[in-house]
Amino acid sequence: MAAPYETHRQQLELILRAWGMPPVNAAITAEIMSYADLHGIDSHGISMIPSYDERRRAGKISMTAEPKIVHDRLVAALVDGGGGLGHLNSHVAMNLAVSKARTLGVGIVGVRNSAHFGACGYYARLAADAGFIGMVTTSAAGIQVAPTGGAEARYGTDPIAFAAPGRDGEPFLLDMATTTVAAGRIRNKANEGLPTPPGWVVTKDGAPSTDPLEASQKGGFLTPLGGTADGSSHKGYGLAAMVNILSSALSGATMVTDPAHTKAPGTMGIGHFFMAIDPGLFRDPAEFRAEVAAFCDSLRATRPSDPARPVMVAGDPERRNAALRRQSGIPVGPGLLAKVKAVAEAAGAPWLLG
Amino acid sequence: MAAPYETHRQQLELILRAWGMPPVNAAITAEIMSYADLHGIDSHGISMIPSYDERRRAGKISMTAEPKIVHDRLVAALVDGGGGLGHLNSHVAMNLAVSKARTLGVGIVGVRNSAHFGACGYYARLAADAGFIGMVTTSAAGIQVAPTGGAEARYGTDPIAFAAPGRDGEPFLLDMATTTVAAGRIRNKANEGLPTPPGWVVTKDGAPSTDPLEASQKGGFLTPLGGTADGSSHKGYGLAAMVNILSSALSGATMVTDPAHTKAPGTMGIGHFFMAIDPGLFRDPAEFRAEVAAFCDSLRATRPSDPARPVMVAGDPERRNAALRRQSGIPVGPGLLAKVKAVAEAAGAPWLLG
Repeated sequence: MAAPYETHRQQLELILRAWGMPPVNAAITAEIMSYADLHGIDSHGISMIPSYDERRRAGKISMTAEPKIVHDRLVAALVDGGGGLGHLNSHVAMNLAVSKARTLGVGIVGVRNSAHFGACGYYARLAADAGFIGMVTTSAAGIQVAPTGGAEARYGTDPIAFAAPGRDGEPFLLDMATTTVAAGRIRNKANEGLPTPPGWVVTKDGAPSTDPLEASQKGGFLTPLGGTADGSSHKGYGLAAMVNILSSALSGATMVTDPAHTKAPGTMGIGHFFMAIDPGLFRDPAEFRAEVAAFCDSLRATRPSDPARPVMVAGDPERRNAALRRQSGIPVGPGLLAKVKAVAEAAGAPWLLG
Repeated sequence: MAAPYETHRQQLELILRAWGMPPVNAAITAEIMSYADLHGIDSHGISMIPSYDERRRAGKISMTAEPKIVHDRLVAALVDGGGGLGHLNSHVAMNLAVSKARTLGVGIVGVRNSAHFGACGYYARLAADAGFIGMVTTSAAGIQVAPTGGAEARYGTDPIAFAAPGRDGEPFLLDMATTTVAAGRIRNKANEGLPTPPGWVVTKDGAPSTDPLEASQKGGFLTPLGGTADGSSHKGYGLAAMVNILSSALSGATMVTDPAHTKAPGTMGIGHFFMAIDPGLFRDPAEFRAEVAAFCDSLRATRPSDPARPVMVAGDPERRNAALRRQSGIPVGPGLLAKVKAVAEAAGAPWLLG
């Protein structure tokens, strides 16, 4: 079934409130989760509800925590998330970075003691909507990627988002895991009985494999972007290490390689990094935005290898999904819907999704 | 033959001076070029001399230009490179970023009207040596990469460097092109008569190919990191677009997609981006460095898939090369050596390399 965006958003808000999240915080969190679903980033919206519920019950994510500013300097701040869900912490942090960028042209805010924050791109876009360049990274809870040459998982999907304002409502918006693909795409291949393309997974000994059950059932691992040593997976691995340094080493969150990662009581211990840069530091901001818009248009005008599939720019596929789903509603599969309904009922939240 | 580092560096300085570069500028440029050769980044040191000479003679790179600061704000500055070679411009720019970071914790410097600047990582490392996080990007002159789904080259190798201080002299130091591999590695396969691994090149119609002559002789292109659409090459493509936005859209350098790219008289029109961030904005800098060092050590301790090849961290291969070459000298193949000697003779520079 597919509910209208507003119903979908409200359902999420009702569940969060039933979990004890204060109303304003629940509204912000529900908006960010619905942004993911609206834009087709299905892995980061309503599908996270069962996992958030599990961690909430285990005392690993607080629904009542309020972010606190630990240090506040002219161009930077450190926020402690109090063990709360990451969305509110990150909303506060990027807005603080933007507000600093309004004054001195740059704002950088680190967050520690946080949890999963949904789609990275949402926060980068906050900066772009304010006319600034935005950059976001986060550490991850799951350890599922083997470094290049490794036969052991040492880190997670470690995403990066980067946004720059262009034409109104059409920012350049890159939001990417530093792995070749996410676990969900491998699961889809397994469901269809298809092999995974070369480079997606390695065996438990670090050897290339095309078995879609390798990482989930046979002790194997996801790969860094690049896929194989020949494909320069050391670059994806290097970007993931950069993400962990920015997100966790800088903010003082638990490093993914620390045996205590996600093990401390009362918190997931996740770290995030948010940066906003005013292009007006360097040139007329309107000229900058026009340049970004023209650059994106030039890339879209690239002769395509398949005339039916024009070349796109980061942000285009998500905008296309959002336009469709604003019309036709946000689809949720029956299996997931049943799980979310059970969570809502257990929490005593009204059920709107039919 | 392999000359000692100091002889190698001095030879480069003599050629630059013979080209009319003022002595201090030549010393800085020669040091940065020799850094690349010492660290095994052979594509970015002495091997660039014939190309610099060609562009110098064509009036596209000035040897007498001095970088000028166009705007200077508290946390940011814009530098105009005057059409000069990129090394001096970039040295000035990153040092300015570091000096700003000493005051307010962050410094960002854009450079326009510049040219090739050698190894990206050198400048990121300048920041790390000062105790700061460093980030560097640059636009490229050559247009040789097809966007995902494209059958036309629209941009270049567009590198990113990122450094963070860890143990003394051992920073985390990522320096990567956003392509799967550089043209040099494809040439090596052609020289050996070997096919290129899947994902390295595409044909002139954008189809995957393993022909090492595809990009150089048959109208094909290099690929974004990820290699193929299945391998998530849209991520490498997205990172390259980010690099162009930071390097050129921000500084006002000519965009790679602009028909005027590298065509304006008297300049290559290349843009760079330099950022330094003081970890002391967020936590005790010594704790930050210890965390980065421990993180790198944990990654190195990953069980390797081949026990004879331990897992490395970004910066390790280059440090290993530098240690070897400090002992045994910097090797230069006979073909390149003859070319450089001819350039030196034509310029009237003394010849030290035997």
